[in-house]
Amino acid sequence: MSKKNSEPTPKNTLGMDVSVDCVVFGFDNDTLKVLLIEQKQPDTVHLKTQNAVPGDLVLDNESLDEAAKRILQELTSLKGIYLKQFHAFGDPNRVRGLKDQQWLRTFRVNPERRVLTIGYYSLVKLSEFKPKAASFAGKTYWVDVYNIPSLAFDHNEIVHKALLMLRHELMADHIGFELLPEKFTLSQLQKLYEIILDKKLDKRNFRKNILRTETVTALEEKQQGVLHKPAQLFSKK
Amino acid sequence: MSKKNSEPTPKNTLGMDVSVDCVVFGFDNDTLKVLLIEQKQPDTVHLKTQNAVPGDLVLDNESLDEAAKRILQELTSLKGIYLKQFHAFGDPNRVRGLKDQQWLRTFRVNPERRVLTIGYYSLVKLSEFKPKAASFAGKTYWVDVYNIPSLAFDHNEIVHKALLMLRHELMADHIGFELLPEKFTLSQLQKLYEIILDKKLDKRNFRKNILRTETVTALEEKQQGVLHKPAQLFSKK
Repeated sequence: MSKKNSEPTPKNTLGMDVSVDCVVFGFDNDTLKVLLIEQKQPDTVHLKTQNAVPGDLVLDNESLDEAAKRILQELTSLKGIYLKQFHAFGDPNRVRGLKDQQWLRTFRVNPERRVLTIGYYSLVKLSEFKPKAASFAGKTYWVDVYNIPSLAFDHNEIVHKALLMLRHELMADHIGFELLPEKFTLSQLQKLYEIILDKKLDKRNFRKNILRTETVTALEEKQQGVLHKPAQLFSKK
Repeated sequence: MSKKNSEPTPKNTLGMDVSVDCVVFGFDNDTLKVLLIEQKQPDTVHLKTQNAVPGDLVLDNESLDEAAKRILQELTSLKGIYLKQFHAFGDPNRVRGLKDQQWLRTFRVNPERRVLTIGYYSLVKLSEFKPKAASFAGKTYWVDVYNIPSLAFDHNEIVHKALLMLRHELMADHIGFELLPEKFTLSQLQKLYEIILDKKLDKRNFRKNILRTETVTALEEKQQGVLHKPAQLFSKK
């Protein structure tokens, strides 16, 4: 049989590594923070300390969701956090920076291989999770999301994109109630929105709009033990 | 210097291929369709014909967005379609089915390698795009999104997930106006929502809710040349 003219050439690729990076946002009523790790110094060489969100390679027989859960736990000892996939970051040169390469060479078998990373994010009550560094994380810490240091690889971009996704979910799906007490005032809810959106909202418009979404129920109860005029309490519908 | 007890073992992985799959939805006023390709028969063996969404491997120095654009054009000749990344599909065995493997062996250099795929989607006016098969696509065709045949790999799952994303964007961000004429009636808009959401909507509630979102503007104009009572026209705000 003669070869058809239009037969496509088989594609050949070098293959990539795939990693998962976890952006964990922590809310503490007054600020929105993000969980970072300080990469541990290798034994043999001294490198400039780098900060990053917790992330590592997906193993050969592991799904992405499994990897996200395992990696967050390995590096920060955190369990039971729901992580949601939000974006794949595929710049061919995203791990090829000089200091990124120096660091990768200390603990990756194929440091020069292209790495595609899948971003996962989560929003938790900061007070309920106490991270503890392990594996190649020398330290874990929470940092204000509006004051993030320079991070390894493209992690600043990853955190920024995660924040945009979080804001979109807040506006579109009204997530975030789980960060408030079971019974809350509309002022508390407004503050949550203001911190995540990083802007002041008009009180009257906020109340009107949130009541229209029919996501909250007014309770037959008011605040107690406050010095000002007690406000009405609401719960999630 | 002594080895620290807690030094992590370097991770070694086989590496993966990464592909992009494109779910192009086409709207034609009455139905929502999705663009499929029929995989071309190889010259040397006869295989059961498979259907799939247009997809292929990301090349070594290509970003994901570049790959999506190139691949859609290579297989369907379509240009100028805005494709949006929506999800990464990472089941370790997603290309290991028997007929998938038979087909991959005919035109991939490493058919047994794990393949992670990044899903992209788009929503277009069906009438404006005329696909034409090329490369390893033997045929292209539009199929009703609610009557999709069995597809290669995990492509049924990919289309389903894309449809859920499309519905979410419709409800959250009110996309879709670009599929209607510049001036449209609320009945036309309601029909668009009903087709994408696959359910009947209550006329009064729909009108009330869409006007509340402040995404449409009432025009000082009514329909012309219709047999029924002419309806008011709206445009996107």
